[in-house]
Amino acid sequence: MPRAARPTGEALAALPVAVDAMGGDNAPDEIVAGARRVAEEKGISVVLVGLPDAVGDVGGLAVIAASEVIGMEDDPAQGVRRKKDSSLVRAAEAVRDGRAMAMVSAGNTGATMAAALLRMGRLPGVLRPAIATPVPDLNRPWPTVLLDSGANAECSAPMLVQFAQMGAAYARTRYGVDRPRVALLSIGEEKSKGTPLVKETHAILTEEADGASFDFVGNVEGRNFFDDLADVIVTDGFTGNVALKTLEGSMRFLVGALMGIMGKPELKEAADAFMPHLLPLAATLDPDRTGGAMLLGVDGVCVISHGSSSAEAMVNAITVAHDLAVAGLVGDVAASIKPA
Amino acid sequence: MPRAARPTGEALAALPVAVDAMGGDNAPDEIVAGARRVAEEKGISVVLVGLPDAVGDVGGLAVIAASEVIGMEDDPAQGVRRKKDSSLVRAAEAVRDGRAMAMVSAGNTGATMAAALLRMGRLPGVLRPAIATPVPDLNRPWPTVLLDSGANAECSAPMLVQFAQMGAAYARTRYGVDRPRVALLSIGEEKSKGTPLVKETHAILTEEADGASFDFVGNVEGRNFFDDLADVIVTDGFTGNVALKTLEGSMRFLVGALMGIMGKPELKEAADAFMPHLLPLAATLDPDRTGGAMLLGVDGVCVISHGSSSAEAMVNAITVAHDLAVAGLVGDVAASIKPA
Repeated sequence: MPRAARPTGEALAALPVAVDAMGGDNAPDEIVAGARRVAEEKGISVVLVGLPDAVGDVGGLAVIAASEVIGMEDDPAQGVRRKKDSSLVRAAEAVRDGRAMAMVSAGNTGATMAAALLRMGRLPGVLRPAIATPVPDLNRPWPTVLLDSGANAECSAPMLVQFAQMGAAYARTRYGVDRPRVALLSIGEEKSKGTPLVKETHAILTEEADGASFDFVGNVEGRNFFDDLADVIVTDGFTGNVALKTLEGSMRFLVGALMGIMGKPELKEAADAFMPHLLPLAATLDPDRTGGAMLLGVDGVCVISHGSSSAEAMVNAITVAHDLAVAGLVGDVAASIKPA
Repeated sequence: MPRAARPTGEALAALPVAVDAMGGDNAPDEIVAGARRVAEEKGISVVLVGLPDAVGDVGGLAVIAASEVIGMEDDPAQGVRRKKDSSLVRAAEAVRDGRAMAMVSAGNTGATMAAALLRMGRLPGVLRPAIATPVPDLNRPWPTVLLDSGANAECSAPMLVQFAQMGAAYARTRYGVDRPRVALLSIGEEKSKGTPLVKETHAILTEEADGASFDFVGNVEGRNFFDDLADVIVTDGFTGNVALKTLEGSMRFLVGALMGIMGKPELKEAADAFMPHLLPLAATLDPDRTGGAMLLGVDGVCVISHGSSSAEAMVNAITVAHDLAVAGLVGDVAASIKPA
């Protein structure tokens, strides 16, 4: 279906967010609970997509019936091809057909990407969609957008250049960063550092800097994620996924070690004194608060929430999906793309 | 000079460790201080390599005179080629010529690799040397060996297979892990996940598992660094460097945030109670304690200490270099290599 047929403006704002009720470790209970909360508390319209018998009490929310579920262990492409009546595929079709403004899933990431790509389609000129994930930076109120954080294990320089364009559009529309600083993830600041892919991308971004709607600030290293050097960090999906999971793993490790210490009986008083001061830090780092990752480059808003999403994570993910659909993210990303 | 000419056994044990006195942010003062301490406290024989006028009071240590310094900003290959009388090149030559058992530098990492490679040479059959870095894992007394952590931005599958062999030899000789578990860093556990490079390496390691002196345990992800799933984690030097620096960056970030909280005047009492419990954790994570990274695959022991090395870091790095030279690391690594 051609893009022009999709609702915009007030017609779009009147549409619900399609939520895959069957996706994620805590589906459907936490998903449905989150959808009900976001509808009640924020007045956001939601349509649940799932097995009617499984979703339980939906509290008056609309339901799009599906008869199949693509599980975490399913092969993404095969799952989407074979399970045509799955909740994921039906959610993507609801966006494609103008019955939903956006889709959200906490299920199989690869299958969510495949469903969005195959049903919504790519935006004109986009080589490959990319997953953009917010990484908190305590130096400022908005996070760093890391992309690609896992959609494409193998990338070309023209793909990375488009990731820079799409990531900048995302930082602008979502976080209000007027002229985002875009950096390449590498293993040294100098343009001579890194793989041929990084060096070639560096050269193109430098050459095209004049006409760009962002500032290319060169390379950053893995140690710079929290140094406020960039608003967008661009890399291939393999490196991005390793870096993101390494970040998550080290945070989890250190917080776990810290909690182990604070749990010692002899330190109870000290722990009670600290806790109120630690909570804001923990909240900033909590992936449930970021609203999930965004698939950029497809012709529709698609939010990928993490597999262990709680009801609260779903509230945030659905809110982000709603707000960005209304804000016109897809149009902004489409406008940012220079065909390679 | 052919390998057979190098001293072994007691002759080797009688040799000093060659220490690049000019390398690193704190050179030469902290380097010389560390060298003096390790000689005095541990009876390890050290020869300092540097500008005689710059090294100051060496406290009776031997000095190999050099007239040049390869700086942090120098191009590694050019630096080694042009500055033939630099401390780094002279230190590598001391090992090559049987006048030192090992070399240690906290200077330009690329130049240290280049000097070691060009002067000591590669071990027979080794495609490319790799940098092996210990990553602490609190679940057990020994760390995880991550390689390549930055020597080769681009790798082939046969190179990664050799990194597995060399990393296993290192874990065995340095940490006494009899049959190391070797994993590949990827973006999912399944063998179908990752780049073609990772998949090809996975296939070779699986196929050759029978004759191997280690257990190939498949893929691990960035989030698994602290999960005791492997003793050795193999990856290309680009991904490894990004992952290692991401680890360092997140640790520094969280520890910094924590110290900021603990420094609040109203929390002084609580901080005093916590501190003794935090110190063992901080010590485990302190890169000064690990003894630095090891360049594996060259015909000599070469320890690369980080650029901001303190005297204490040098004590540990020199001790590791000494102990591993005496333990026969180079022979063990050479024996582990199956020519590709």
